[in-house]
Amino acid sequence: MIKEMMLAVLSGGTGTPKLLQGLARLAGQEKISVIVNTAEDVEISGLYVSPDIDTVMYTLAGIVNEGTWYGIREDTFFGHEMLGRIGGRELLRLGDRDRAVSLRRTQLLREGKTLSKVTLELCERLNVRARVMPMSDDRVRTVVHTEAGALSFHEFWVARRARDRVTAVTFQGIEKAKPAPGVIEALEESEAIIIGPSNPVTSTGPILRVREIGAALSKHKEKVIAVSPIVGNAPVSGPAGVLMGGLGYEVSPVGVAKIYRDFVSVLLVDEGDRERVEEIAKLGIRAVPASLLMPDLSSRMKLARMVLETVI
Amino acid sequence: MIKEMMLAVLSGGTGTPKLLQGLARLAGQEKISVIVNTAEDVEISGLYVSPDIDTVMYTLAGIVNEGTWYGIREDTFFGHEMLGRIGGRELLRLGDRDRAVSLRRTQLLREGKTLSKVTLELCERLNVRARVMPMSDDRVRTVVHTEAGALSFHEFWVARRARDRVTAVTFQGIEKAKPAPGVIEALEESEAIIIGPSNPVTSTGPILRVREIGAALSKHKEKVIAVSPIVGNAPVSGPAGVLMGGLGYEVSPVGVAKIYRDFVSVLLVDEGDRERVEEIAKLGIRAVPASLLMPDLSSRMKLARMVLETVI
Repeated sequence: MIKEMMLAVLSGGTGTPKLLQGLARLAGQEKISVIVNTAEDVEISGLYVSPDIDTVMYTLAGIVNEGTWYGIREDTFFGHEMLGRIGGRELLRLGDRDRAVSLRRTQLLREGKTLSKVTLELCERLNVRARVMPMSDDRVRTVVHTEAGALSFHEFWVARRARDRVTAVTFQGIEKAKPAPGVIEALEESEAIIIGPSNPVTSTGPILRVREIGAALSKHKEKVIAVSPIVGNAPVSGPAGVLMGGLGYEVSPVGVAKIYRDFVSVLLVDEGDRERVEEIAKLGIRAVPASLLMPDLSSRMKLARMVLETVI
Repeated sequence: MIKEMMLAVLSGGTGTPKLLQGLARLAGQEKISVIVNTAEDVEISGLYVSPDIDTVMYTLAGIVNEGTWYGIREDTFFGHEMLGRIGGRELLRLGDRDRAVSLRRTQLLREGKTLSKVTLELCERLNVRARVMPMSDDRVRTVVHTEAGALSFHEFWVARRARDRVTAVTFQGIEKAKPAPGVIEALEESEAIIIGPSNPVTSTGPILRVREIGAALSKHKEKVIAVSPIVGNAPVSGPAGVLMGGLGYEVSPVGVAKIYRDFVSVLLVDEGDRERVEEIAKLGIRAVPASLLMPDLSSRMKLARMVLETVI
């Protein structure tokens, strides 16, 4: 039964790719459409880098660096080091193979292809059988407003290590962003829509704010399940905590439920957060306890199975 | 005495960089201006690659790959291999460090800097103390006309391995090309101008055809010395033979003398070509036999000394 259904997954980096590994093993990549955050896309050394698309793509191609969930396994950094030596210091550390992917992407975009076409082409070359789509072919940029001024996501998180108090997060270009071709169809046709355990502010947040995507989820709320990226009072990884806190949300599965309340009917919370289930129910969301940490493939498959059994 | 004089060197790849190694040891890099062919510059994966500038720069920085006189010593090719895998096959094999240099160059050019400014900046970063200048900041492209059609230099030489009979060679853009800033001054002020042992058709040829550069050499012919890239009836390396032959020149030091006759007063020929000296004298050029092969640093220094002693 699991093998027959179509799934749509909303993804950022790190957490959701881990879950995707499990889902792909369980349901088969062919059944999965992944709609990926592009609001953290950034130009590095003149190259168009799409960190979340790359992590998803590398994960499904079986070549992701599982130490960092960023870049390619066993990649080298000779180009990055040379750039540092010749005055081209880079905000993100691009490996030599990873850089080649961004170089090719940049070249194809310059030739006039859309980001979704380019992503499809790269995925085919890397033997990814899931359908990986950017949330939009229109450029959207996360702006983190802090007491130190307005920062890009990577300035906030990588360069300044999230040391500035966050006052607001906005997404430049989001009002005009249309869903990439196929995104709405994938959401309509799938038996389940899964919001992966990524940061709800800057990872899944921009995807949900693409107007038509948010509307499609609201409309199909009964088949939408989210996995909390917060366990107890801290994110499993990344800046979700400081961002949620800065925006006035409680850093907890309840805070996550508040952010997602218009879009989901079920939220998987960690077993340790069992006592928050009723509070979340008051928001109109069924909270289901599960083991959310995914240190290895077997835990990823277990959580994937739990997700599917809960939502179908 | 040698240490006090200013030298200008016209360079392509391979042969002249070897001689430059010797000249730099002998005279000191600070005394040398190198005017480099850019007609083989080419876009690879959207990057602006300048093969001759890079070989000269890497040679003077002490990091050139002396196995191939192309690229950086002990460079890796992980990016190149990844590009091949994802549909971005490259006409030239760029190493990871070498690619970083072209990436930085491309980025600086896109910011609006001229090629000569960018070259200066890269040289400074790589601790090159000689002054390395492109022949021109204007784009010039070598076109090799063959029985198989018009080809770019790299299509002719790398992709098709010089298998097509050459009927003509032209340089697109050469009529409008102005010398890069500082080139004419360097030629005027130097005590000697050395045309290195590079291919006279497509390496030093385009430099001489930048009108004001050719005129400056003609005017100062008495201080111009060339080193023959042809020994006996074959080039030491590269496509000089097929190109000269295709254009109707004898593939010999005499053929080289005919190409350079308006520009030089002295031509170093190989000791084995001693019997051609008188023939060359009839063209108004003093031919001086020397040992032209440069397999190691000591032979490069020896030839460099011979060049300087002959011309000063």
